[in-house]
Amino acid sequence: MGTEPSGPLRLLRETHEERVLTALRTRGALTRAQLVEHTNLSRATLSSIVQTLLGRQALTETGEEASTGRGRGRPVSLLTLNPAGGLALGLDLGHRRIQVTIANVAHEAVASGEVACAERTPWPRRLRLALDLVDDLTTRYEISLTALAGVGVGIVGPVDEATGASNDRVALVRDTLRARFGVPVFVDNNTRLAALAEAVWGAGAGVSSALYLRLSYGVGGGLVLGGRLFAGAGGAAGELGHISVDRDGPACPCGGRGCLERYVSLTTLQEQCADILDARDATARDLLVDAGTRVGEVLAAACNTVNPEVVVIGGELAETGDHLFDPLRAAFHRYTHSQVRRTARLTRAALGHDAAARGGIALVLTTTPQEASRP
Amino acid sequence: MGTEPSGPLRLLRETHEERVLTALRTRGALTRAQLVEHTNLSRATLSSIVQTLLGRQALTETGEEASTGRGRGRPVSLLTLNPAGGLALGLDLGHRRIQVTIANVAHEAVASGEVACAERTPWPRRLRLALDLVDDLTTRYEISLTALAGVGVGIVGPVDEATGASNDRVALVRDTLRARFGVPVFVDNNTRLAALAEAVWGAGAGVSSALYLRLSYGVGGGLVLGGRLFAGAGGAAGELGHISVDRDGPACPCGGRGCLERYVSLTTLQEQCADILDARDATARDLLVDAGTRVGEVLAAACNTVNPEVVVIGGELAETGDHLFDPLRAAFHRYTHSQVRRTARLTRAALGHDAAARGGIALVLTTTPQEASRP
Repeated sequence: MGTEPSGPLRLLRETHEERVLTALRTRGALTRAQLVEHTNLSRATLSSIVQTLLGRQALTETGEEASTGRGRGRPVSLLTLNPAGGLALGLDLGHRRIQVTIANVAHEAVASGEVACAERTPWPRRLRLALDLVDDLTTRYEISLTALAGVGVGIVGPVDEATGASNDRVALVRDTLRARFGVPVFVDNNTRLAALAEAVWGAGAGVSSALYLRLSYGVGGGLVLGGRLFAGAGGAAGELGHISVDRDGPACPCGGRGCLERYVSLTTLQEQCADILDARDATARDLLVDAGTRVGEVLAAACNTVNPEVVVIGGELAETGDHLFDPLRAAFHRYTHSQVRRTARLTRAALGHDAAARGGIALVLTTTPQEASRP
Repeated sequence: MGTEPSGPLRLLRETHEERVLTALRTRGALTRAQLVEHTNLSRATLSSIVQTLLGRQALTETGEEASTGRGRGRPVSLLTLNPAGGLALGLDLGHRRIQVTIANVAHEAVASGEVACAERTPWPRRLRLALDLVDDLTTRYEISLTALAGVGVGIVGPVDEATGASNDRVALVRDTLRARFGVPVFVDNNTRLAALAEAVWGAGAGVSSALYLRLSYGVGGGLVLGGRLFAGAGGAAGELGHISVDRDGPACPCGGRGCLERYVSLTTLQEQCADILDARDATARDLLVDAGTRVGEVLAAACNTVNPEVVVIGGELAETGDHLFDPLRAAFHRYTHSQVRRTARLTRAALGHDAAARGGIALVLTTTPQEASRP
């Protein structure tokens, strides 16, 4: 018998290898024990597959990265895809800022940059700024994009991926980038991409289910289930900014009424207190108590619905810390089912400005090749 | 070359066969086109696998069951697992009623029965009643339980499957039934099982995501994602009865405050109007407007969070029809994000008393053998 398996056995091994490669591509660095869990392969089969993949240099092993967490436990080695195996490009075409991040398939960022833009910058111009920034980064860091696996792009406003509906902006972004890079391009709302990034790299790293809320000039959110962005039937899952907190409140452009966003967006709060982010200001502190309470109520309703492992709260308003979080936690505690409250961890976002661009990368890495090849 | 494939090829085919068998086990009858979608196999591979499985009598094909839906389209054949391939037993140990349903792996109910019980019946006695009913049905319909794949049991009250936490009641039910039948036993809250049943056989049949709300003496719910029951981190996903509708409302035993259940349960409504289910009564009609409005508000918040394809509303109160549903739809419309509203279908539950018992069967059939073998 030769050492190279024959046709059918090779095919069987390939389906097992695919499971291992997919787990590492979507989750990043994992121990062998975590891989057994994620692939449902036996320990023996996994061990053999990993050995083969290491030999073929498809994987990389790092020896000392993690311990068992028990102080004196022996180091546990982590496996990742070989960083040379490919790159993903993440772009965030935000209101006031264009962000570009390039990472490899081992989940390591290799270059990152940002450029400011005026709020009313037309979309072709935003794309131009983003592409110039990509050129600048690849030149400066001598990065070749020949092994690019895909591009993930965050844009402001709604994106209706799930129903296949699209709008001019999405089409422009997708067509321009597909023509430029010749790889699959995924476009989603940038707040939802930030949600995915927090669940993959940030405050929710390693969890299976996470709810994300972003408190900024707008109030948006996202829902991550099974380690992947959950779009919902209309691409609007996680739209926590449009849960009503006042049944007689004003109509909202979203079509709802009394939406959370009307009460706790920076835009609204700054109308009432220019120094809302400065907690030394007494008016600001009072407003933050009210805002935190409303946010806590909405998160309680959302968590009674999906009961996530972690709730991640980001955006400028979250940077006020306990001034917002104390009333928020009190309201959350007051209105949640005890089983929900006991299991949900409320935490501040861990990633910075580049969250949505990193989410674009996560979107590329958590999308299977089959999905990517769909029209 | 023999007709029987050699070892490795057989293993490869087995992993493909497993995908086909799992899709049919969890989804019931499917066309070949639907199987391609659910298994991600190529049309050619699927066709070959199906042919083999039909030859081995693992599958059954029915020729005339469905048309293409275009009036004169030619009949499309449906595939199911061979009904002789195994049985699943579903039990519902409800407040006032014990329900037993037996179905085969082709998703066909083969026997069903119920027996009333007093509300304070002790749990060992409930189990005895259920087992007597199983004996009665198997004797009467000459059913052999030797090919039993598993037992799914609905009980009242919270069940914390996800965290492994358990209580005496769950342990009693599980241990008794495991000892009796020698197969895996799955226990969950009976409202959540009704949610799963509606998504597999009822008003949400064929959808991927469904939110279920049961309006009865209690108000509960469940969330189905990817065709499976979603438990959440603490087993409390879908607890819509405990979303607050009145921030200054009374404390609830769940730990929350102003919970929907306090306002729209039959228990509460019947205190205000004994004839609440009789829409000829003017007081009943007024109360139904108020109840429908509150339910619509809660469903709006829940749907802005998960954006499901369908919302199924069951329980006695739903039987009042438009008297409840008109104000419910109005409130839902008023407080949902337009993307959510456009895609969500609100509908009455389609299954009857046996919904939770059928959900028990669905729980057995949607649980993979790997999961079932976990301790």
